Amino acid sequence: MSVTFACPAPIGRHDRVVLGHGGGGRLSAELVESVFVPAFRNDVLAALEDQATLTLEPGVRVAVTTDAFVVEPIFFPGGDIGRLAVCGTVNNLVGGGAIARFITAAFVIEEGMLVADLERIARSMRAACDEAGVSLVAGDTKVVERGKGDQVFITTTGLGTYPGMRRPLSVAAARPGDRVLVTGTLGDHGIAIHAARLGLAFETVLQSDVAPVGKLAAAILDACPDARCMRDPTRGGFATTLNEIAAASRVGIVVTERDLPVQPEVANACEMLGLDPAYLANAGTIVAVVPAADAERVLAAVRALPRGRDAALVGEVVDTRAGTVAVRSNNGGERALPMLAGEPLSRVC
Amino acid sequence: MSVTFACPAPIGRHDRVVLGHGGGGRLSAELVESVFVPAFRNDVLAALEDQATLTLEPGVRVAVTTDAFVVEPIFFPGGDIGRLAVCGTVNNLVGGGAIARFITAAFVIEEGMLVADLERIARSMRAACDEAGVSLVAGDTKVVERGKGDQVFITTTGLGTYPGMRRPLSVAAARPGDRVLVTGTLGDHGIAIHAARLGLAFETVLQSDVAPVGKLAAAILDACPDARCMRDPTRGGFATTLNEIAAASRVGIVVTERDLPVQPEVANACEMLGLDPAYLANAGTIVAVVPAADAERVLAAVRALPRGRDAALVGEVVDTRAGTVAVRSNNGGERALPMLAGEPLSRVC
Repeated sequence: MSVTFACPAPIGRHDRVVLGHGGGGRLSAELVESVFVPAFRNDVLAALEDQATLTLEPGVRVAVTTDAFVVEPIFFPGGDIGRLAVCGTVNNLVGGGAIARFITAAFVIEEGMLVADLERIARSMRAACDEAGVSLVAGDTKVVERGKGDQVFITTTGLGTYPGMRRPLSVAAARPGDRVLVTGTLGDHGIAIHAARLGLAFETVLQSDVAPVGKLAAAILDACPDARCMRDPTRGGFATTLNEIAAASRVGIVVTERDLPVQPEVANACEMLGLDPAYLANAGTIVAVVPAADAERVLAAVRALPRGRDAALVGEVVDTRAGTVAVRSNNGGERALPMLAGEPLSRVC
Repeated sequence: MSVTFACPAPIGRHDRVVLGHGGGGRLSAELVESVFVPAFRNDVLAALEDQATLTLEPGVRVAVTTDAFVVEPIFFPGGDIGRLAVCGTVNNLVGGGAIARFITAAFVIEEGMLVADLERIARSMRAACDEAGVSLVAGDTKVVERGKGDQVFITTTGLGTYPGMRRPLSVAAARPGDRVLVTGTLGDHGIAIHAARLGLAFETVLQSDVAPVGKLAAAILDACPDARCMRDPTRGGFATTLNEIAAASRVGIVVTERDLPVQPEVANACEMLGLDPAYLANAGTIVAVVPAADAERVLAAVRALPRGRDAALVGEVVDTRAGTVAVRSNNGGERALPMLAGEPLSRVC
């Protein structure tokens, strides 16, 4: 847990796309901000939330999000690319305060892929849809020549609504004095993918946490209707998500290392591989910022759920060093926990 | 125009995905119907329309469609993958009777792609969005290793609404006696891609027709509020679209070969290459079925638009041979015009 590979060096302009542009950290942000935001400039996109909130007709708001999934391997301990594609999109909607309702899926299939594998993925997606309470309502399939793809890439788009007391949440709403909560152990998805790819012996005990987070979010919002932000920490992990919240909210965030929930097997694997679980992807966890007065009540509500039993209050929002995240280490010191720079593990989602 | 490569032989069950599964014809339908429809079974999906119509709240309907684009080459005469991705999705919404409003885009980028090419594509997408009157509101980027993708694949998802007199149209609504109209010349997009790929000398005069079809659809619906069906004939072309309408509506369709609008350059290229323009993709054209009484009025309205000047009434809906399409040839005979079977041209969209 002590080694961080987040590089603080400035990142120059690239002529060609590199793997790090897909890592979910500073290079990814640079690509989006230099290529896509200028081209498509509009208010919704400029907010850089994980989901967009649209007004379709006066009074009718809908949450929309889209994600491409290129995870490798496509089957891994705890899940597969199909389950990940459904949960990733559902969780973006849920993190934004919405109830996930509908999903679409487009498949880019490499010639030669086993039809049986595709069927297994489709069944897994249906199961994940049922678990999340969403219907798959539209789809598309394309096929590319052998060697021009990698088995299957899946892009899912989700639609959500804000019934009753629900409202769009923003990563720009954290305030000094708030507390930071995580609903589960850190890095489970990223380390499971990494171990599966390396064929490491301990891979059987390292399982992805991939799951829909709707019930966790409902517990948080029921216990604390005034919750500030929620986000699922995928690419770039917990540390990158906190940096996004700190930057958007113009606040500082300080977390306490000993409070960070990490499974012992994950900690061991990270130690061995020189990885930091704070930068590894999760796929079934929420990072939430809540007012201090509600924090213990939210923690109890989340811990009462099967997927929330490892939840922990791990830090606080401060009014100094706006836009940055620091960690109080076990030895009493404090160090920066910057946004992930490049690409530690490619294709984790 | 006389050679058809649509194979009438039955298609067996495949263990592995072949390129033809992406061709948009019978093999594509087989893949969707054997793998995806059973897994995701629900009423919206079972309708197999190009777009789904959802009821988000009582009285609030939204049209949704999704499409993956893997066209090769990514830049071609008349357009590029970005323009195609915006127009393809907009046109699915428009074909279903909706007004296109919002779009999302997810990019799967191959390591090593030129950032300048990505910027050019993003600018082209923005221009197409402006032309179509839609905003791009959410996006995602992923990067895969060199040799695991092919420069860039783009998946777009579109949202549309049905303001005023608009209503969802269905391919199941054609009735005997109706007339069939096409708004432009056949096969322009498919032949432009094919020529560009082969590096043929005439490629400069063969331009894709890729464009948003919103104005064409508005002209049709204004002239004929009772229009039965509209669809943009992409993969599988005009012939496959007519077969989809014939099957869904349980009617026969007869078209007249000499009435089919085909550019002379396209006809020449097809003759040389042994292709039939009726099976080649369009990307800025609508096939519409309208009541006979309105047909001439619709034709005049469409022809008044710049993109509709080659529009033609090309056939009629009959109450015999339900589910099939026939063509009256120039020599007076009649032959079947079946659904595209396999894959004449891969990766045209």
